[in-house]
Parts: sequence; C-alpha cells; structure tokens
Amino acid sequence: MLIHSRIPLRYVFKKLKEDALVIILIGLAVHYISAYYINRIPQMPSNIPAFLGTAISVLLSFKMSQSYDRWWEARKVWGAIVNDSRSFVLQLQSFVKESTNPMVKTLAYRQMAWCYSLGQTLRGLDPLEGLEAFLPASELQHLATHKNKPLAIIQLNAQDIKNLIRREELDAYRHVQLDATLVRLVESMGKAERINGTVFPVTYRVFLHFAIYLFVITLSFSLSEIPLIFELPLLVVLSSVFFLLEKTAYHLQDPFRNRPSDTSVTAIARTIEINLRQLLNETDLPQPVQPNGFYIL
Amino acid sequence: MLIHSRIPLRYVFKKLKEDALVIILIGLAVHYISAYYINRIPQMPSNIPAFLGTAISVLLSFKMSQSYDRWWEARKVWGAIVNDSRSFVLQLQSFVKESTNPMVKTLAYRQMAWCYSLGQTLRGLDPLEGLEAFLPASELQHLATHKNKPLAIIQLNAQDIKNLIRREELDAYRHVQLDATLVRLVESMGKAERINGTVFPVTYRVFLHFAIYLFVITLSFSLSEIPLIFELPLLVVLSSVFFLLEKTAYHLQDPFRNRPSDTSVTAIARTIEINLRQLLNETDLPQPVQPNGFYIL
Amino acid sequence: MLIHSRIPLRYVFKKLKEDALVIILIGLAVHYISAYYINRIPQMPSNIPAFLGTAISVLLSFKMSQSYDRWWEARKVWGAIVNDSRSFVLQLQSFVKESTNPMVKTLAYRQMAWCYSLGQTLRGLDPLEGLEAFLPASELQHLATHKNKPLAIIQLNAQDIKNLIRREELDAYRHVQLDATLVRLVESMGKAERINGTVFPVTYRVFLHFAIYLFVITLSFSLSEIPLIFELPLLVVLSSVFFLLEKTAYHLQDPFRNRPSDTSVTAIARTIEINLRQLLNETDLPQPVQPNGFYIL
Amino acid sequence: MLIHSRIPLRYVFKKLKEDALVIILIGLAVHYISAYYINRIPQMPSNIPAFLGTAISVLLSFKMSQSYDRWWEARKVWGAIVNDSRSFVLQLQSFVKESTNPMVKTLAYRQMAWCYSLGQTLRGLDPLEGLEAFLPASELQHLATHKNKPLAIIQLNAQDIKNLIRREELDAYRHVQLDATLVRLVESMGKAERINGTVFPVTYRVFLHFAIYLFVITLSFSLSEIPLIFELPLLVVLSSVFFLLEKTAYHLQDPFRNRPSDTSVTAIARTIEINLRQLLNETDLPQPVQPNGFYIL
Amino acid sequence: MLIHSRIPLRYVFKKLKEDALVIILIGLAVHYISAYYINRIPQMPSNIPAFLGTAISVLLSFKMSQSYDRWWEARKVWGAIVNDSRSFVLQLQSFVKESTNPMVKTLAYRQMAWCYSLGQTLRGLDPLEGLEAFLPASELQHLATHKNKPLAIIQLNAQDIKNLIRREELDAYRHVQLDATLVRLVESMGKAERINGTVFPVTYRVFLHFAIYLFVITLSFSLSEIPLIFELPLLVVLSSVFFLLEKTAYHLQDPFRNRPSDTSVTAIARTIEINLRQLLNETDLPQPVQPNGFYIL
Repeated sequence: MLIHSRIPLRYVFKKLKEDALVIILIGLAVHYISAYYINRIPQMPSNIPAFLGTAISVLLSFKMSQSYDRWWEARKVWGAIVNDSRSFVLQLQSFVKESTNPMVKTLAYRQMAWCYSLGQTLRGLDPLEGLEAFLPASELQHLATHKNKPLAIIQLNAQDIKNLIRREELDAYRHVQLDATLVRLVESMGKAERINGTVFPVTYRVFLHFAIYLFVITLSFSLSEIPLIFELPLLVVLSSVFFLLEKTAYHLQDPFRNRPSDTSVTAIARTIEINLRQLLNETDLPQPVQPNGFYIL
Repeated sequence: MLIHSRIPLRYVFKKLKEDALVIILIGLAVHYISAYYINRIPQMPSNIPAFLGTAISVLLSFKMSQSYDRWWEARKVWGAIVNDSRSFVLQLQSFVKESTNPMVKTLAYRQMAWCYSLGQTLRGLDPLEGLEAFLPASELQHLATHKNKPLAIIQLNAQDIKNLIRREELDAYRHVQLDATLVRLVESMGKAERINGTVFPVTYRVFLHFAIYLFVITLSFSLSEIPLIFELPLLVVLSSVFFLLEKTAYHLQDPFRNRPSDTSVTAIARTIEINLRQLLNETDLPQPVQPNGFYIL
Repeated sequence: MLIHSRIPLRYVFKKLKEDALVIILIGLAVHYISAYYINRIPQMPSNIPAFLGTAISVLLSFKMSQSYDRWWEARKVWGAIVNDSRSFVLQLQSFVKESTNPMVKTLAYRQMAWCYSLGQTLRGLDPLEGLEAFLPASELQHLATHKNKPLAIIQLNAQDIKNLIRREELDAYRHVQLDATLVRLVESMGKAERINGTVFPVTYRVFLHFAIYLFVITLSFSLSEIPLIFELPLLVVLSSVFFLLEKTAYHLQDPFRNRPSDTSVTAIARTIEINLRQLLNETDLPQPVQPNGFYIL
Repeated sequence: MLIHSRIPLRYVFKKLKEDALVIILIGLAVHYISAYYINRIPQMPSNIPAFLGTAISVLLSFKMSQSYDRWWEARKVWGAIVNDSRSFVLQLQSFVKESTNPMVKTLAYRQMAWCYSLGQTLRGLDPLEGLEAFLPASELQHLATHKNKPLAIIQLNAQDIKNLIRREELDAYRHVQLDATLVRLVESMGKAERINGTVFPVTYRVFLHFAIYLFVITLSFSLSEIPLIFELPLLVVLSSVFFLLEKTAYHLQDPFRNRPSDTSVTAIARTIEINLRQLLNETDLPQPVQPNGFYIL
Repeated sequence: MLIHSRIPLRYVFKKLKEDALVIILIGLAVHYISAYYINRIPQMPSNIPAFLGTAISVLLSFKMSQSYDRWWEARKVWGAIVNDSRSFVLQLQSFVKESTNPMVKTLAYRQMAWCYSLGQTLRGLDPLEGLEAFLPASELQHLATHKNKPLAIIQLNAQDIKNLIRREELDAYRHVQLDATLVRLVESMGKAERINGTVFPVTYRVFLHFAIYLFVITLSFSLSEIPLIFELPLLVVLSSVFFLLEKTAYHLQDPFRNRPSDTSVTAIARTIEINLRQLLNETDLPQPVQPNGFYIL
C-alpha cells in the first residue's frame, strides 16, 4: 500500500519511460512525414483527437472504477479476515468449557499461521516461511504435502475442534457457530484467490493503448504546424496523463503481486498476530510492520 | 478466460471484419454521392459527429459496465461454488460422527460431479460427460431422466444426508448447518442460470450500432474534402475503437458460451476436484487444466 | 424479455412515431421563423446544442443505469424465487420424517401456485387464474377473500408446516430452518412489489424530454442555413437516438407491465413447476413456455 | 412519492423562481457592463462556458446518483419493514403453541403502531398520533416518556415475547428466530434514521451552485453580441435544466421531509396494517391511502 | 459532519489559499513568457485545455464517487453500531432469565464505553478518556495494557456473558445468538479501522493535481491575448472549481480525522448512550451533542 509520505519521482517515471519514448518517436515520424509530403497530406481536423480524448477518458473511467473495486474488495476481504480472526478467538474463549484449555491457544496460533500463509500464497512466495513460530514441525511436514496450504491449515483447525467435542469441551450448538466462522474464513480465502486468479479482460487494455496511440498520432498531425520543440513536450505531457492513470489502474487491479501498490497483507497479518496474542493475555508482542520508504507491504 | 499471454491479432480482427467492410462501403458511398452532387449537398458541421461520438461513449460506458458486472458476477458465483464445496467437505468431516464413514467420500465425489455437470450444463454441453469418474452407473441412469441434472445431483446428496441421520451418524443441529450449505449451492446454481438465461436488453445493442453507423456517415460527410486514401483508413480506425469495445462487452455479458472470453468453469471445477481430493487425503491428483494458447476454459 | 431473434422494426418505430412528428413540426416551425425574420434572428452558436447534447447524455446515462438496475434487480428477485422454491422442496423432503408424507406434495404444489399467482398479481392480471391445477377449490375460495393472494398462500403453507409439527413429523429445529426459507420468500415477494409500486422519480423524465426538445430547437436554429430536405432527416435521426434510449430505459424500469420487455415471470414460474415436479418424481411434465415471436413473457 | 399523473407546472416552476430571477439579473448586468466597456472587455472564448457545462454535468451526474441511492435505499428500508412485519406475524402464528393466543394479536397491533410511529418520527411529526387505535392508553403514557418512541415499542414487544416464554407458549429455539426478526426491524429503523440524520456533504451543493452561476456569467459574456431579447430566455432556459436537475436531486436525497417527493411512509404503513389485519383474519379493513393530486405520502 | 447552517466562507477559502497563489504565479509567468517570446511561441489551440478539462472531470468524478463511498460506508458502519448496540441490550433483557440481573446493566454500560472508545481510537484521541463514567477503575487499568482498547472491551463483555452461563442465567442457544451480535460489533469495528487505515491510492491525487496544473498552463497560453486583469481572475475561478471539488473529496475519504467533515462519531455515541439508558429505564439522561457552529463531531 502506498502511504502518504512523498512518493519518489523515480517510482512515477519508471512507469512512463517506455511509453514516453514511443510517443517521441511517433511525434518525430509524423513531423517528418508531414514535412516531406506537405502538399499531399490534408490538415487533420482538430476535433478528431478531441473526440478520441473523450472516448479514452470514458474507457479510462471504466477501467479505473473496476480496478479500484478489485483493490478495494481485496482490502475488504482482508478486513473480514481481521474481524473473523478476532471473533474466532473470542468465540473459542467463550465457547470452550475451560478457558484455560490449551487447545484454545493451539487453534489461535494456527489462525495466525493461516493469515501469514494465505498472504504469502497469494503473493506467490513460500507459503510456509516463518510458520515455525506458530506450528510444530510435524504439522509443517503435513502441510508440505498439500497444494493449498491455507486450506490444509483450516482442515487441521476443524479436526481439533472436533476433538474438543469428543472430549465434551464444546457442545453441538456452539460447534455450529464456530463452524460458521470457519465457513466465513474459507469464503475470504476463496475471494482473495478469485481476485488473484481472475485476469482483468485483457482486450480492454489492448484497445485502450491502441486508442491512446491513435490519439497521439492524430494530435501530432493536427499540431504539425507547431515547431517540434513545442510539439514534442506537449504530446508527451498530454499522453502521459492517460498512461499514468492506466498504469495506476493496472497495478491496483492485481493487489497481490509484491508491488508497492499491493494490499499490505503482511502488515495486516502482523496486526492480527498482535491482537490475538493480546486476547490470549500474552505480553511479549511483536512490532507492527514498518513502512518500507513510501509503501508498506 | 483470456490470459496475459499475447492475444493473436487474428482473434481481434476476426471480430472486426464485417463491420470494417461496411464502414469502407459507407465511406465510398458518401464520397461518390458528395462528389456527384457537390453543389447541392451542404457541408456537414463537424460538431455533429463529435456530439454523436460523445453520445456513443456514454452508451458504451453504460454497456461496458453492465456487461463487466455480469461477467464479474459469474466469476463471483463460481468463486462461491469453490468456497462452499470446500466448506461442504470440511463440514462433513467435522459433523459426521465417524470421519472414516464412507458416505463422506460419496458425498464429496457427488459434489465434484455437480461442479463439472453445472459447468457443462451452462455451456450447453453434455451435462453427464465424464461424470462416470465420480458417480456409479445407476446414478448416472437416474440423472439421465432429469431435465436439470445438477439439481438432481443435489437431491441425491440431500437424500444421503438424510440417511446419515437415520443411522444416527449426524444430529439434527448439524443437519441444519449442512442444509444451509446446500441452500447456498442451490443459490449459486440459480444465479449462474440467471446470468446465462437472461438476455441483455437487445435494443441497446441495436441502437448502439445504429448510432455508430450514424457517426460514420456524418463523419464521412464532414470529411468529404479529404482525399479518399486518407479518409477511409481514418473512418475504419476511429469506428473500430467503438466496435471493438462493443464486441468485448458483448462477449463478456454472456460468460458461458464456450468462447475464449468465458468464465473458466472447467478449470475451476478441476481446482475444486484437486482441493476436495486432498481434503479426503487422496494422493493421486489430476493435473490443473492448462491454458489453450491465449485462453483457459 | 426480448430474445435474440430479430426485433421487428415495427416494434422499434412504434415507440418513436409521436416524438418524430413533434421533431418535424419543430424543424418546420424553426425553418419558417428563421426564413421570415432572417435579418432579426442572430445565428445560434453551434456550441449551445453541443453542450446540451452532453448534458442529455449525462442525464440519459444516469437514467439508463438506474432503470437497468431496477430491471436487473427484478430478475434477481425472480432468480431468488427459483432458488428458494427448489430449496424449499429439498428441505421438506429432507426434514419431514417420512419422505412419502403427502403433505410434502401439498406444500410443493402450493409453492408452484404461489409463483404463478405472484407473477400475475405483479402484472395486474387475475391472481387466481390457472391455480385450480395446484389448489383445491376450498382454498381458492379462501384466497378469493384476501387482498394479497400470494401472502395468503404463504400463510396456508405456514399453517400446514405447523400441522406437521403437531403430528411430530417435523422438529422445532428444522421448523426454524424451513421458516427461514419462508422469510426469504416473503422478502422476494416484497421486493418485487417494491419495484412494481415505486414510481421512478417522474420529474427526471419530464426534464429529460424538456432538454431533448431544447436540443432540437437550438440545433435547428443553428442548422437554419442548411436546406430543409437535409435538415429535417438529420434532426429526426439525431434526436431519435436520444428518444429511443429513453424509451428503452423507461420500459426497463417497470418490468411487470405485460410488455415485451417484461421480466419473463410466467416462463420462470413454469421452470419452477417443472423442477419441483421432477423433485417430486413426477414424470408428466408441462412444456416450457415458448417465445412469442421476438419476446417471452 | 410523485405518481404518474400530470405534475402541475406550478410545482416545477415554484422550484425555479428565485434562480431564474438571479439569472435574469446576471444577464442584464453582463449586458450593460459589456455595452459600456465595449472596447475594453475582450471577447469571452466560447469554449469556457462549454467546458464549464461539462464539469457541471459531471458534478450533477455524481449528485443525482448519490441522491437517488439515498432515496432508493430509503424505499428499500421501508420495503424490508413491509417484509419483516409480515414475517413477524406469520412467525408468531406459527411459533406460538396456541394460534388463538391473544398475545399474537397484541404483538401484531404493536407492530402496526411501530410502522406508523416510525414514519411520523422520521418526518418530524407527532410520533404518537393515531396510535390509540393500536395501543392501550397505559402504553401510550409509557411511550410518552421515551425519546425514541419506535425503539420503546420494540422493547414492549420483546418483553411480551419473553412473557410468552415464561408461560411456555414459546420455546427457546423459536424465541431466537423471532429475535432475529426484531434485530432486522431495529436495523431498518436505524437505517432510516441514518438516511434522515446524515446531511449530504453540503459543500458539493455550494460548489455546484457556484459553478452554475459561473457558467451563466461566462456564457452571457460570450453571447454578448446577441440581442438581449434572445439572450435572456436562452440563459434562463439553459441554466434551468441544471437548476431543475439539482433541485430534484436535492429533494430526493432527504426522503422524509413531508414533501411530495417523499418516500410514501404513511401509505406503506397502511398497506402493512391491511396485510397484518388480514393475516389475523379480520374483515373490517381500512382503505389504502389515496394519492393527494399528483403525489402520495 | 457539516450541517445545513451557513458554512463560513473562511472555511471554504482556507482550502484554496495555496493553490490560488500557485495559479496566479503560473498565470503571471505564462503571461510574461508569452509577451517576451511573442513571435517564437505559437498559439496554443484552444481544444487542448478543453480536452484536459474533460479528462480532469472524469478523474474527479471517479475520485468523488470513491471518496463519497468511503464516507458513506463509514456512516453505515456507525449506523450498524447504533443498531447492534440497541439490539444487544434488547437481547440481554430478553435472554437473561431475570431481567433485573445487575449484569445486564454492566454489559450495557460497557457497550456505551465501547462506542465512545472506538470513536476516540479512530480519531487518534485518548481511547480511555471519559470512560470512568461507564467502567470501574480496575477495568480501566486492565484496558490500559491493551493496544486495541475496543477489542479488549468486547473481550470483557464476552467473558461476562460466559459467567452468565456458568450461573445458568443464560442458555447455550441464546448464548450463540448474543455471540452473533458480538461478531457483528467486531465486524463494524474492523470495517471502521479498515476505512481509517487504508490510504486512498495516492498516485491518483498526484496525477490529478498534475493534470489541473497542466490545464491551467495550457489555458493561460491559449488566453495569452486577453489582458492580464481579465485572465488572472478567470484562471483562478475556473481552476478553483476543480480544486474545491478535489479538496472536498479528499476530506470525505478519511472521515475520522477530527475535521469538520468527519463522521460525527461522538454525537452518535451520545445517541447510543441516551437510547441504552432509556432501555435500562434510567431517567437521568445526558444531552445530545450540540453542533459546533457549522458542524457536529
């Protein structure tokens, strides 16, 4: 997640480099073509690029909204994970006959492990990294054989909740209520996987870039009487507004890619860890994740 | 679902062929009409096509949003199917007295069959194809008499859950919780059928095409002083931005048509199969569905 | 619901007749006023109609979205009715001790009657027509005294479910789960009534027509130098884009009016009947409702 | 709620009076300033008011959408109240051991009183007016001491439901299901209060008016060569499109203000009363609320 | 929350000061550059700033919608807190065997404390300030050790509900229903924290400001023939429409910052306190929070 501190210009311009170069080449090409065939190429009416600018704005507006919605939904999903993780521990303490039952702590630790593991799975990192702080080695070995580690962690929790019932530490009625919390966690996991695995319709991006280049070409033809030294910066600056917005939308739409604009899943998992440890009355708490310059992951 | 790999130009242009031809014919017709009646046809004010361009952008923006919403809702529905399939098996293992009860596996296999069958039903393919891997021949025969196969599969599962109760393997309380999962699966099925069976208001598409052709005609009249060799490509390229966006929206709005832009229901059903088999501790897992060039189904 | 088959031009133009006539009259009036007072009326700047066109597009975009939402919500409500009707019968078969209990069939038939009756009530038709296939004469007489027939049908079902409990065919726990399904059906009924009974803010439509006529007047003044034979068709064609879109939105916003663009509630009720009869193992099934030319009701 | 019958012009123009006067004064002022300083004031480029018109359209579109959403949400809340009132009585009849228990009628009458009282509270009217038809004098006295009457009515119902349990007319399980209905009613009440009590960000309205006046000023400068007799009506008519839309949105956003555009809460409460009385088998039913000319409250 | 009373101009202009100064400097710079290099700088075509104006409007429209959604969601979350606080006390009175049980009052007071504490936590104020009116000193000491005070208050309530069960004042069935209310409160808390802690994508704001300045620069070049005394006010007034809208959106998107445009969490918490005290039959009620001039917090 980008934070409010000053964003380095380098971060912004890195996104723009290639496109700016193409724009300059287009501007130069159009200029020399116009100069060479000056009598044979008619004047481009200025309302052509203007109309294209409107069409591009509409397209961008559509894409910005949908990309933002994906990003915001991803954040909502992780907000729901925070809420359900807290509720899960509150429910365990409230539902299990003896609050001091060590199983409460075991289940809570597995929940912390689940949060970290889900975040790393989504980002394509090692889903078991760092889990040795929460899980015994035997469970880590068991998880290693599973393709979907977070799902396997939830299965372990479901099995241990069943064990609580066998030992009559939990009744059927509250079992079902705990199960409802697990169902919500499975849902959040699936929603995050859906956002991560569903490619935003790629043709929109292709047509958008096509339209922006068309805009640049028609604009440079219609500005062909203006000296190159004024025309080129104008072309680059005007088209860069479009390119920058498109890039921002493009990054928002996939919020689990290890990029500065990602949903800060590690920081959220850490917050959950701190909250759950305090609910368990632990006093040795980890530090919140600190921002990495202008962003936090 | 289109994936990030390079989309073949052929795929894009195939969509455009017919419309481009019509545009060229319109351009030629307008050109020769203008040339012939040159003194009798007044100059088309250039703000007429410009205003039409704006109106078309607004229409397109509306259609793109609603089509995207249908496509995204279809994906959400299948995401919910993933979640509820996983929860269903976790609940069975947790709720049935003996986890080793063979009925758990029977119910889980029927759930996998349901996912494949629903996907094929939505796409208009044979809804029973490949189900022999999950269901005994007798059940397949029973299903053959049903008009709505996925609904009949859920009914079989509901009956077997009732049998679990008769044998006192499940209590009333957990029965209701399992039933809530079945209700959600029936809902997801119905939602997918709704998206599949509801025709997007067709008049919008008709009026949109009408407006685009009107745009081309007025634009070609207003450009009639420009040589044909510049005018025709400009007409085609400008109108193709509109046509391509409309086609993309048109394909998105019906995501179960066996097209490259479909929701990838087979791949999702396979993911569910792999997940459920692992939850059942099976080790002989099928491979995930591989992309078919630039898309995955 | 309009279907994909070719929509007759007659259907489209019938919507347009009156407005086209008014447009032509305005065009003629403006033309002769301009011709008569030619020296006294200044030239209308062409950006006045252009700016009005933009404002109208924005208005239309707003109205199209909200009308579409009403139409889509109506379809979603009927989708929920499909889902809950199916779930209702699955639950009855699963919850009632003896699946062969004749009350299951009675309740399922009343549910089919409810679907037909609700559809006809919404469309302002006779809500009891055709219900003799599902309900005994005594119940039809009882319903005749009720103002809200579908609500009375649900009350009958609720009473019979209570009778099941008296005869200990159903326990309290599953009673509540069945009740939850009835609550959802009551909700769907109320939502459809809300869409049907809530008038879309009428002033928007008035102001929209006002703006379109203003657009035509200013446009015809600004085109007053163009010969009438070119100006009139242009005026009609341009304004008809707006009128057609407005009419489409206007029809979508009230989807229970016995119009071709209606939500196809009869066809949906028939689908429910077929599904429920098959769940009851009946083999004598009715045919699905067939399209009526270019639409299905 | 405005209904489909012809809206009196008086109702529309009353909204416009003041703004039209200001527009005329601005037009006159600009005209005489331009005439006096004719050589010193440069021509206003016509794209300045055009660009402002676009910006205003965008602003208006935003405001119309959000205002409509508030209005539609208010209607949805009252739709939910209809549904939950019906479900509440159906549940009471189904859950209470003896359907003839007089407490069912008492609770249903209190629910009717709650609907009327909530509607009047939202509109700032006397929340107890007319409740003597549903509640005994002693309860009305008790309510008089409460600041939030509808909340106090729900508390009375919750207490009487508890009394049903004490007399073993209701079991714990169904108690919880009835409580869920009360929770939903408390939610609907709170949602209506939220819409009623949350001021739409006022600065948007201020800036919108500011932009419309700026539009009028720049437009009248750019039209300064046109005779006053044509310019003034044009200014008034063009700006009135904006003002009328803004006023409509402004009225929609606060749907409980005793205005013709209000949500028709009295009519809805009457519908609920009729429905509930019929569910109680009463035959002496009140008449539905009749429209008051062009609207219904 | 800003209220309807007249907003001081000072509040509006304070937002504008810096940007207006920059605009004036840009205007002056462009003017003198144009005057100096008059023959070498070509005329800026007026459709460049016009096209930028459209692009900015689209951007603003996107940002205004998303910011409004955050603000409205924040208000909805606090509305849900109102509803669940009321339901919580109604449920306690209804579920606990003896309504006179002093634990009901203890739990209700902790709920009031939770509301105040959550509001203050969100605004970055002392989360324990004023809680001595609701909580004993020992609990305040316990809370002081917790990082997330509201979460710790809910844990205290969950523990006391468990104590009610130990003393058989509450049964398992109603326990679960009360737990569902706690789960919703945990959700509301998490949602408010999410809105508060998620930075709106900062790059949009940067690019928006970039585009507005670009608009001003190109506009001032295209107006360079107009005398400075007319050009500068026009530049400031036109760009201020954009800046004011952006500032309003910027403030709405973070509704817990102790600003006049904040969600009025203190006033809402007071309303809850008054409601809950009346439900407990207390007569010594606090006053509602009064507006602070043109806003209420």
